[in-house]
Amino acid sequence: MTTHETMPGTQGPTESVAATDAPALPQVGGNLTTAPPDLVKRFWKYEEALMADDLPTLDALFIDDETTLRADGAGVLLGSDEIRRFRRGRGGAAQRHIASVQAVPVSDTAWLTVGESLTVAGGRGVQTQLWRHDPEQGWRIATAHITGPAVVLDRSIWREAGAPLVAPTSSGPLDGMTVAVKDLFAVAGHRIGAGIPEYLETAAVEPDHATAVAHLLANGASVTGIAQTDQFAYSIAGRNAHYGTPPNPARRGSISGGSSSGPASAVALGQVDIGLASDTGGSIRVPASYQGLWGLRTTHGAVSKNGTLPLAPSFDTIGWITRDASTLRRAAAASLPENGRHTLPETIEFVVDRTLVEQSDPDVVEAFDWYLTGLGRGATEVSLDAGHPSPAQAFPATYYEAFRVVQAAEAWASHGTWITEHPDAVIGDVAERFADAALMSRAQHREAREILDEARARWEHVLEGRVLLLPSVASVAPESDAPDEHIQAVRTATLAMTCVAGILGRPALSVPALETKGGPVGLCLVGPQYADLALVDLGENIANRQMNQEHLAARGFGAREQRTTLTGV
Amino acid sequence: MTTHETMPGTQGPTESVAATDAPALPQVGGNLTTAPPDLVKRFWKYEEALMADDLPTLDALFIDDETTLRADGAGVLLGSDEIRRFRRGRGGAAQRHIASVQAVPVSDTAWLTVGESLTVAGGRGVQTQLWRHDPEQGWRIATAHITGPAVVLDRSIWREAGAPLVAPTSSGPLDGMTVAVKDLFAVAGHRIGAGIPEYLETAAVEPDHATAVAHLLANGASVTGIAQTDQFAYSIAGRNAHYGTPPNPARRGSISGGSSSGPASAVALGQVDIGLASDTGGSIRVPASYQGLWGLRTTHGAVSKNGTLPLAPSFDTIGWITRDASTLRRAAAASLPENGRHTLPETIEFVVDRTLVEQSDPDVVEAFDWYLTGLGRGATEVSLDAGHPSPAQAFPATYYEAFRVVQAAEAWASHGTWITEHPDAVIGDVAERFADAALMSRAQHREAREILDEARARWEHVLEGRVLLLPSVASVAPESDAPDEHIQAVRTATLAMTCVAGILGRPALSVPALETKGGPVGLCLVGPQYADLALVDLGENIANRQMNQEHLAARGFGAREQRTTLTGV
Repeated sequence: MTTHETMPGTQGPTESVAATDAPALPQVGGNLTTAPPDLVKRFWKYEEALMADDLPTLDALFIDDETTLRADGAGVLLGSDEIRRFRRGRGGAAQRHIASVQAVPVSDTAWLTVGESLTVAGGRGVQTQLWRHDPEQGWRIATAHITGPAVVLDRSIWREAGAPLVAPTSSGPLDGMTVAVKDLFAVAGHRIGAGIPEYLETAAVEPDHATAVAHLLANGASVTGIAQTDQFAYSIAGRNAHYGTPPNPARRGSISGGSSSGPASAVALGQVDIGLASDTGGSIRVPASYQGLWGLRTTHGAVSKNGTLPLAPSFDTIGWITRDASTLRRAAAASLPENGRHTLPETIEFVVDRTLVEQSDPDVVEAFDWYLTGLGRGATEVSLDAGHPSPAQAFPATYYEAFRVVQAAEAWASHGTWITEHPDAVIGDVAERFADAALMSRAQHREAREILDEARARWEHVLEGRVLLLPSVASVAPESDAPDEHIQAVRTATLAMTCVAGILGRPALSVPALETKGGPVGLCLVGPQYADLALVDLGENIANRQMNQEHLAARGFGAREQRTTLTGV
Repeated sequence: MTTHETMPGTQGPTESVAATDAPALPQVGGNLTTAPPDLVKRFWKYEEALMADDLPTLDALFIDDETTLRADGAGVLLGSDEIRRFRRGRGGAAQRHIASVQAVPVSDTAWLTVGESLTVAGGRGVQTQLWRHDPEQGWRIATAHITGPAVVLDRSIWREAGAPLVAPTSSGPLDGMTVAVKDLFAVAGHRIGAGIPEYLETAAVEPDHATAVAHLLANGASVTGIAQTDQFAYSIAGRNAHYGTPPNPARRGSISGGSSSGPASAVALGQVDIGLASDTGGSIRVPASYQGLWGLRTTHGAVSKNGTLPLAPSFDTIGWITRDASTLRRAAAASLPENGRHTLPETIEFVVDRTLVEQSDPDVVEAFDWYLTGLGRGATEVSLDAGHPSPAQAFPATYYEAFRVVQAAEAWASHGTWITEHPDAVIGDVAERFADAALMSRAQHREAREILDEARARWEHVLEGRVLLLPSVASVAPESDAPDEHIQAVRTATLAMTCVAGILGRPALSVPALETKGGPVGLCLVGPQYADLALVDLGENIANRQMNQEHLAARGFGAREQRTTLTGV
């Protein structure tokens, strides 16, 4: 397609990148030929390198500078380092042909090109490139903006979607609101896929809505679609190997968090108002925390699990993920029984267990402490594990280990038979977790259960009616391409903190209040049982309070505060 | 949010557009403040005008020039006239806040800004603007590129979609191919919506796949989703008032064509390989023609209509829309019975009826004649209506009128009861058509049926085993915002041509071969009954032949030829 005939160069040397002529592609409506010949060569060189995923050439064709930028629907990458990193993680661009190019002269040393491309698969894209010339390097790209072809639906977020998929069954306080249902809930007329294509194939069509789905529909909400989950919800990463990792718009290139990965990303992207989700070990709090969202894990048993697929019934709870407290409150109010709504005292006491908080990364601890100070009201330090009969046992590691054993035993009881019959259906780290679960003995399970029962009683005694504060997770969202060992380490550190609410059966709210330099982290409020709605009100109050300006200024960045305002909802 | 404090202007007068300061929005990571103050004012002025849909101000902030351009995922608008027209048809932009701006100095009189925006609904967008300064007009936009927030799915195209919605039931020649199923076909476990939300609500879940769906699944294809149709398929425009008009990527701002609007746009956008559709009066040929696609209306009765919603059973047929002949052939081969595949003679004779061709707009006639000449093989002129017993009757108007009456009577027989019971469910021009249909007398229906039966026999005698050539439609796709009367006039002219295949029960192939200055038009091949596959082969042969270069050059534009190649499939 290309020839190497020499064209007269008029704009300086091009030695650093071998120049080629334009491939024999038509220029439908284009005027690229009005551009300097050396720029035209570079333009086609870039296209050729892009199609070949020739990273050194692509790198060389972008100006090596911290102001170089590349923008697309996921946001702006600033500086050639960030762009290089993105390029290495992308795994090549979709094959495309240039259908037309508009070339706009800006100055002697700057041209802008706007190319329309047709992808081989049939879609259409547009890219704007600002080219700058310098005598040493010739023409290179200073800024690029890419709009890719429209996809039907992002299958890393959605397993199925409609316009809407299910209409409201009645009018109510959720009128006009849209819901992403995690693929563990029955939606009448549809199947449950649980994040596993083979499970979906073998599943029967559900005759009725899960109770939690029916609550939302009866209050005016519509179901936009069924959103992705980690396989059988047995992960908090959101890296579903079958369907891909959903985007995390709060921290580009990082994992979404799981297992309620699809509902969380759909909410974060503004595609729906409410994510209907479940939380066993942190499956609502983790993605909410990673993506700067509100998330509520309800009191164990407060919302019926009828019509949902279990993971570990002793800990499984229903909940919601939203962009704002008011929507979360409405979803919760539509779903929680009216006769079990405990209130909180007006001057509720906060308590903090330092050992628990310090399971987190130092930057998370710092953000938590800074926020707590800014609250301008005290928090009582407690030792949750005080009064332990054998203090040699480590807190919280002992309890996380007992939680892990009970969760595994129950998960195997829920899905072991199916997994045995479909040995290749579940893959990756979730498969390894089930393989471990299969080996769990009854004695191990019983012993772990006893540890948790004892702990629960003791912890309740320490907490009384007070609200425990801690970071929702141990770290900001790890990068999507992090090695499995890193994801596993993050999982262990986070579950040591999140399992506390599961062991207690208490409601836990993640408020998008903390901000580290690496991204958002949730502030977790673990409240008394059945105080779910009061906990949301409390979270909203502390998020809306005016923080002391000096306190804000002293930290130097309070971007999360501002961003929350910016979403305008 | 804005103040009118005067800032020192350093870059020339700004009288033509009243300047305002930046609203009190945070600049997360931005550096807009490094730009010239007058440019900063203009930037915010633009945002303010965009949010208010203040068209005069928006117009004034773009350079008034034929090189000014605006690009987004749908393509490039070139020149301020086109941009103004787009702006007037858009009905305002989604409400958004600017979250960050990167400002890039290019020269003394040119800056580039890249803004990240958060829409009020929660999504994220990016826009690049090239600003140029002149002493008279100050800073104005020379080029703009916009990427809007990602939507779940485009509901003008899709009623429901999955990842996939239905997996293949077997392996075969369609392995890896994806299908958009028009919302008139049963997909097991889903309901038929027929383009009418109220119909969807009252529909039962289908227990089995329609035969035409099952054929594709059994040959390796998966169903991506259920795509939109005009209400009960009773239109050829594709302007579904409930779900919106799908985009026509071949002619931006124009209608998609209908009634198989969703499958056609999904194919044109590269979202699927195959559109499974139906054609009563032109519902496959019209959208294929408007969008530069291949479309086959099969021989009446050749593919079972089991599991599909009828419109007018005397004319209803199954067919497919694709981007290339090879995929169309594979879909047809997977679906047509093996024992009824008639061949065509190697030197098939083409026939043309000038009266029929000249139902089209002059530019379509010109493109048709030019193409025919370029084919380098003769076409025999025939008069389809030769031997008519009462030659005073107009051809083809008389037959279109009879077709219209029979279609209406049958449509009412199919859906009259449901429409009577749901008086507000069907809206717009389709409702008017059904209202007319309700008044059709038995005598009218019988008389029209007799006219068609007589015509069919006579036309078959004229055509014999030959292939009739004509433009697929009477005009290029009308603009989406055209008045109803214009759409109705286009409908009448086109149906006068398309109804011929319906009356004959013959297969009709639309080949994306003609190109007018206003956009693509299909070349229609009406072949003998049961020669469906041979007709696709014939269409592929004539589309692939090398057209004489002098002939191409003489016309000055053969872009359609090139574009077909460009899709690379």
